[in-house]
Amino acid sequence: MYIEELHSAVGKTVTLKGWVSNKREGKGIVFIVLRDGSGYCQCVVTEETAGTAGLENAQGLSLESSVELTGLVIEDEKQIGGYELQVSGVIPVGESENYPISKKEHGVEFLMDQRHLWLRSTRQWAIMRIRNRIIYSIHQYFQEQGFVQMDAPIFTGNACEGTSTLFETDFYGEPAYLSQSGQLYGEAMAMAMGRIYTFGPTFRAEKSKTRRHLSEFWMIEPEMAFYDIFQNMDCIEGMLHAIIKDVLAHCAQELKTIGRDFSVLESSLTSFPRLTYDEAVRIIKGEQDVNGKNGIGSLEEELRRVQLRLEEVNAEIADRETKIASGGMKKGEINFFQTKIDALKQEKADLEEDSRNIPQWIRSAREFEYGNDFGGSDETVITRLFDSPIMVYDWPHAVKAFYLKRNPDFPDFARGVDVLAPEGYGEIVGGGERETNVELLKAKITEHDLPMEAFEWYLDLRRFGAVPHSGFGLGLERMVTWVCGLKHVRESIPFPRMYGRLKP
Amino acid sequence: MYIEELHSAVGKTVTLKGWVSNKREGKGIVFIVLRDGSGYCQCVVTEETAGTAGLENAQGLSLESSVELTGLVIEDEKQIGGYELQVSGVIPVGESENYPISKKEHGVEFLMDQRHLWLRSTRQWAIMRIRNRIIYSIHQYFQEQGFVQMDAPIFTGNACEGTSTLFETDFYGEPAYLSQSGQLYGEAMAMAMGRIYTFGPTFRAEKSKTRRHLSEFWMIEPEMAFYDIFQNMDCIEGMLHAIIKDVLAHCAQELKTIGRDFSVLESSLTSFPRLTYDEAVRIIKGEQDVNGKNGIGSLEEELRRVQLRLEEVNAEIADRETKIASGGMKKGEINFFQTKIDALKQEKADLEEDSRNIPQWIRSAREFEYGNDFGGSDETVITRLFDSPIMVYDWPHAVKAFYLKRNPDFPDFARGVDVLAPEGYGEIVGGGERETNVELLKAKITEHDLPMEAFEWYLDLRRFGAVPHSGFGLGLERMVTWVCGLKHVRESIPFPRMYGRLKP
Repeated sequence: MYIEELHSAVGKTVTLKGWVSNKREGKGIVFIVLRDGSGYCQCVVTEETAGTAGLENAQGLSLESSVELTGLVIEDEKQIGGYELQVSGVIPVGESENYPISKKEHGVEFLMDQRHLWLRSTRQWAIMRIRNRIIYSIHQYFQEQGFVQMDAPIFTGNACEGTSTLFETDFYGEPAYLSQSGQLYGEAMAMAMGRIYTFGPTFRAEKSKTRRHLSEFWMIEPEMAFYDIFQNMDCIEGMLHAIIKDVLAHCAQELKTIGRDFSVLESSLTSFPRLTYDEAVRIIKGEQDVNGKNGIGSLEEELRRVQLRLEEVNAEIADRETKIASGGMKKGEINFFQTKIDALKQEKADLEEDSRNIPQWIRSAREFEYGNDFGGSDETVITRLFDSPIMVYDWPHAVKAFYLKRNPDFPDFARGVDVLAPEGYGEIVGGGERETNVELLKAKITEHDLPMEAFEWYLDLRRFGAVPHSGFGLGLERMVTWVCGLKHVRESIPFPRMYGRLKP
Repeated sequence: MYIEELHSAVGKTVTLKGWVSNKREGKGIVFIVLRDGSGYCQCVVTEETAGTAGLENAQGLSLESSVELTGLVIEDEKQIGGYELQVSGVIPVGESENYPISKKEHGVEFLMDQRHLWLRSTRQWAIMRIRNRIIYSIHQYFQEQGFVQMDAPIFTGNACEGTSTLFETDFYGEPAYLSQSGQLYGEAMAMAMGRIYTFGPTFRAEKSKTRRHLSEFWMIEPEMAFYDIFQNMDCIEGMLHAIIKDVLAHCAQELKTIGRDFSVLESSLTSFPRLTYDEAVRIIKGEQDVNGKNGIGSLEEELRRVQLRLEEVNAEIADRETKIASGGMKKGEINFFQTKIDALKQEKADLEEDSRNIPQWIRSAREFEYGNDFGGSDETVITRLFDSPIMVYDWPHAVKAFYLKRNPDFPDFARGVDVLAPEGYGEIVGGGERETNVELLKAKITEHDLPMEAFEWYLDLRRFGAVPHSGFGLGLERMVTWVCGLKHVRESIPFPRMYGRLKP
């Protein structure tokens, strides 16, 4: 029996198998929070129900030891998960001495070194369950509409977009590069299968530590024959709505566990604003308000709020440290104060980062030059003004990929679309309608100094039955990061790989 | 409207968008077989229904040009897909001059060079649709049971099993290797989430051309806490049954298209025979019959059949070549003869390969040494005797991976299980119960001369709440190859990567 099935076993005696996630003891009673991967359940062991041996076994259990607990299932909405087990039998399975992760705050690098164990913590468990639901929602959404999942190759023989961010390997004596995108292959597959999607890892060598970048990340890249850019946007919106609905329906407990504010997910179930690049630029530069909010004005307000709070936090830390230093406190009280100080210091670090970032955002928004692509800070500035993702389309052709179709009425603009998540999260989807004219593509390939020979097969797609077609790429980890409201993308994947992080 | 939705549009006028897969012309009439990725539909264009311009447009369409056809949907079970479109409007979309793939037999290397176009052919379309269904079935099977999909990393920092078959890359100055299996990570994730499965690409540098090996292939690796080897086998069987049922239910047209014999799929819906290694060895060596069939005896019979047929085929080729050479045949007749000869030569090549292989299989079966792992030919010999997959378990510990648990009653045997597909296909799944004893694992790691330090995190899984657990790996392409009855694994993936094949 799994914990998530307990609703069907109220009043029955069942056996749960799992790990001790938490334990409290009283006189003649042990409270164990058991985790089995499907959920958490409080299990109460007393001598009366479990006998002397059962109680002693329970008393001997340490954090993260494994155990089989048999008992009666009671409904109790006050308990985590809504049920409680009145334990009649305790069979210890595997010991756990000096489990390295405790309740106190650990540094991130320490936790990342212990990622194989850190995954057991409630917060990571919840994120991984949400990630799983997002993945499955994507499959369901596309399969129900008749898309065919097709896998693009990981090894590619040509460095189609310059080698600086590519990982290279030796493929039986030839250089091969790890794919950064399956899109070009996706186009070939769409011409064969109509509507396809890829779902696989992609790789980018990015020699910098940021909150948004991984060296190994998963992408979903749908590609649809006979879709124009507007049908493409409908498809993106439909997919994102389906994902969010599913997460809200199936992962409410997980979202609560990580303290995620539901309201922004709920407000993302409406139609996403569709802004042209021109309109988006006016908003970034503070020349156009959104629902009465000015981008730069609201940043200035936010900065004042951050600075005030920083003063408060500093004062409280100093105050508590003084009290500890002055002596006379009991050990328990000191521990309580120290935990509080650790949390305040974490908040302080975040506030300090904000107080460094916001002035930069304001400056870069004010100085944004029309015609440029958006940087991370531009995305932050604009998306803070919305309570749902937004779609920005019709980008200056010069700053976007060579394969994007030009707007027939305004040929300086390409029919690309970026979807930016709210709350400052920024780009989660990039896509567009593809150029179908061989000559225009060849000119662009030459202009970008790309090796024509490597694109012959891609040009064949225009030589033999070209059709209007569009597609996009969703970054899985960015989606998970936004849905979960994480600060850093590294928590959105089981074993992150990035600059400085290759283990475990 | 997509072709697969035509059942809901009988008697209505709809527009289909797709490519010309085939075209026949008569006086004042054009028959187009349109493909749109979702299916095939015969579309009939006459002057009466489509007007002069419509007929002329249709006459101008070449193979693989793209087109929009509007017309009335008629039910007609004689036609491919069961419907016909009586066309009233023809709008050509994209031209296609000198499409390189024709109806005649092309060499495999040519087709592989044209893989981006070859995918459009009916047979490849069918295989890819079946692949898609298999992938989705796997997700559905595990999700419905409460498994959590977790992704193992592709980049790994240690060459855990020797570097000879690993692809290496430079990860910001450190060597990193592309994953050959996510299993060890799967174990860590199962300890956190209970029951998980990975679904991702794995890589193996195999400097040889075989029918069974790719350099880049997809693996599904479930791992389950609190499962012993027998529950593991139940899980494998349940998954394979679910896949086969789904393919039979949803891909009947595709299976017919590729000429797959349904009966072996249907007979695989029963319980799979579970043989110990000992029993399997007796069968391979011909010491034990299966349903009255002897492994070696039936191979000898097969060899006689092959040799007889080879003589017939040689005679027919010679006969037809003589007739062509003698002259006096019309061009159409010569073409017909030549096509027949090409097909016979293909059959001859296959028969010759069989006549080389079978004696080797017989010899290697006779000489099989107890205690060895099975080779490809051993798998062929035993699986030809069954009409469903078989499970072989309890292997000699010495020939299997270090992490397999020993049989507590017979410690020379490890609780590994291989699933071998019938008809000579061989291994599609490998798995087993994992060792949980730290000391036994350490001894094995030392014995295999592996770097202990790289396994510390893996040993942690035994130090902190070890539980009995099991898992397995399913090779997606091997599964597709067997389900579709393909001769070579290269057709089972959109863009195969193997020794000598990195493009397109």
